[in-house]
Amino acid sequence: MTSDDFRFEVLALDGATQARRGRFYTPHGTVETPTFMPVGTAATVKGITVSQLHDLGAQVVLCNAYHLFNRPGAELVERAGGIHRFMGWDGPVLTDSGGFQIFSLADTLKLDADGVSFIAAGYGGAHHRWTPEDNMRIQEQIGADIIMQLDQCTPYPAGKSFVAEAVRRSADWAERCKVAHTREDQALFGIVQGGVFADLRRESVERIGEMGFPGYGIGGYSVGEPHELMFETLPGVCAALPQDVPHYLMGVGNPTTLLHAVAAGVDLFDCVLPTRTARMGTAFSSEGRLNLRNARFADDFGPLDPACRCAVCQKYERAYLRHLVKSREMLGAILLTYHNLFYLIDLMRRAREHLEAGTYGAFLRDWDRSPAADDY
Amino acid sequence: MTSDDFRFEVLALDGATQARRGRFYTPHGTVETPTFMPVGTAATVKGITVSQLHDLGAQVVLCNAYHLFNRPGAELVERAGGIHRFMGWDGPVLTDSGGFQIFSLADTLKLDADGVSFIAAGYGGAHHRWTPEDNMRIQEQIGADIIMQLDQCTPYPAGKSFVAEAVRRSADWAERCKVAHTREDQALFGIVQGGVFADLRRESVERIGEMGFPGYGIGGYSVGEPHELMFETLPGVCAALPQDVPHYLMGVGNPTTLLHAVAAGVDLFDCVLPTRTARMGTAFSSEGRLNLRNARFADDFGPLDPACRCAVCQKYERAYLRHLVKSREMLGAILLTYHNLFYLIDLMRRAREHLEAGTYGAFLRDWDRSPAADDY
Repeated sequence: MTSDDFRFEVLALDGATQARRGRFYTPHGTVETPTFMPVGTAATVKGITVSQLHDLGAQVVLCNAYHLFNRPGAELVERAGGIHRFMGWDGPVLTDSGGFQIFSLADTLKLDADGVSFIAAGYGGAHHRWTPEDNMRIQEQIGADIIMQLDQCTPYPAGKSFVAEAVRRSADWAERCKVAHTREDQALFGIVQGGVFADLRRESVERIGEMGFPGYGIGGYSVGEPHELMFETLPGVCAALPQDVPHYLMGVGNPTTLLHAVAAGVDLFDCVLPTRTARMGTAFSSEGRLNLRNARFADDFGPLDPACRCAVCQKYERAYLRHLVKSREMLGAILLTYHNLFYLIDLMRRAREHLEAGTYGAFLRDWDRSPAADDY
Repeated sequence: MTSDDFRFEVLALDGATQARRGRFYTPHGTVETPTFMPVGTAATVKGITVSQLHDLGAQVVLCNAYHLFNRPGAELVERAGGIHRFMGWDGPVLTDSGGFQIFSLADTLKLDADGVSFIAAGYGGAHHRWTPEDNMRIQEQIGADIIMQLDQCTPYPAGKSFVAEAVRRSADWAERCKVAHTREDQALFGIVQGGVFADLRRESVERIGEMGFPGYGIGGYSVGEPHELMFETLPGVCAALPQDVPHYLMGVGNPTTLLHAVAAGVDLFDCVLPTRTARMGTAFSSEGRLNLRNARFADDFGPLDPACRCAVCQKYERAYLRHLVKSREMLGAILLTYHNLFYLIDLMRRAREHLEAGTYGAFLRDWDRSPAADDY
């Protein structure tokens, strides 16, 4: 099913940690890893044009099959010529299966061994039923380069037997997705579940790992548990997964968490955090998170982040950005979103440099002592 | 007060109409006229970055002294180094005095010969009092290249004695603004009022015209009256005004109205129409106005306007833009705003070309017979 189109090369291994410097080939371009992938749920990164995505150095854009299925419809995206043509982005695209959305957003969920029935919240309340096979057909219609298996993401806290059942169901569905998936120009990734339970994570990795996917999502983290709990099991998951394919930690976007997850062996990240917090007036910075609503920025004529090289930090001052945020001007959300995305994309670029230079361990130690690490 | 900094050259006069092809010099750059000036009320054109304004070919950006006075405060803009530095736009800026906003937005207005007392609606309800002198100080603090006198804009319909009083008050305030204004790097424009009454328009032009302003606003139109009524008096106003300075028709943004107003002798335009309607999902086009919410665009994979050269029309299809609008995605508002601004800016560029070639009359006749003229 997959071919050399989706080759993953490990270019360097860190001596002190499990971190990898990699390169992932896709039909729409090469992805240097580790990297952060901006989230464009409904075929748009909120407030950001495709031209700005290129300026930012975004390598992969993430869309969501649940949302696109509901609006404008996967078939319409297919008729438009696929997701790349539809949204005007010619780089790699990844679609999440929508499993997470079904289990967190959809009303009146009914789950059985064969699939899941749900009412689409926020989309007029239509009744739908998805089997793993249905989901593969939808993601094939959308046409991303990387697609994710349909899985059952468990919340935190959740009882162990509930999580165990989700691990087994997700593994069964992984097999069915693999059989159903036909497009050779798409890489289908399996997803590891298991919550905070080390033995369930181990079981999940064993079952999914032996299926030979060209990449693995690591789901069910960052769903409310303390960060420490994630790091009790994440390094083991990464170590137990096949090493010759990318590891994608789903839904994590804290700068400090990203750097530690890289050390655990993660290659790909996505999260709404940089874009969603930007729309609420919050910016990542070398001084820690800044809430631009704070009165202390009213007459601060310095750059947003003196250490940042992005177009926003070169051009605009904090007093102006605060004015935009306080005035609820779209441009405030746009400029903060641009900066926050640059911040994470650039952070991963710096991580790659340190991995190439063999200095990642020192970089991480310095980071943890810096004011930037306050968001952890 | 003004100098060669604000020289206006009439480069060509149309044979068939009163239209002029002009050039207006300002300390922050030269403005080719006729032109449309995007509205950036609160020191931002909603949803559009400064870099995009440059791409659009915007020559002047309009801000509003009423809104900036209320937030973030004129003094703060001054401390930031002035409006250009504050918003990061190094081209010419024009501020409206805020007279229109006071008379249309502010609660509990109290008007007397000396000034106006008001409660700032939408800004916490603070009590304020503005005399013409106060307004000049505020606009000097903000620091635009072109500033407008404080005037009394009358609505439609309005009784003749009420409009007559507003004409006289506005003329008195024009004189006081002229005396109070001190910054030589700013051009202060007087404003003609008079509603739909030809004799009051004549009286207003006579009084304001002899004061020798470096440019004239024409206010009190496009406040609800039928277009035909405006064109009964607008050509006479333009003809009676000094011919060696720019004529600025305030608050008009219909493409067809713009072209006819150019024929009447107008050089500068501003309006929220292109930006506000864009945010509601409406686009100007060579086929007339398009409401992207319309179901007929759901699977229309053609460009927004096949006749338009803007970046949005080169890149995105109607089905995608409709999807963004229906999904209430910021990018929908951003892309339609970009297109609508380009549409008016480019329309004025084409008008200038026809004025230079002596073909404006024919251009206008063709336009009026085209589907694009449906918005009139």
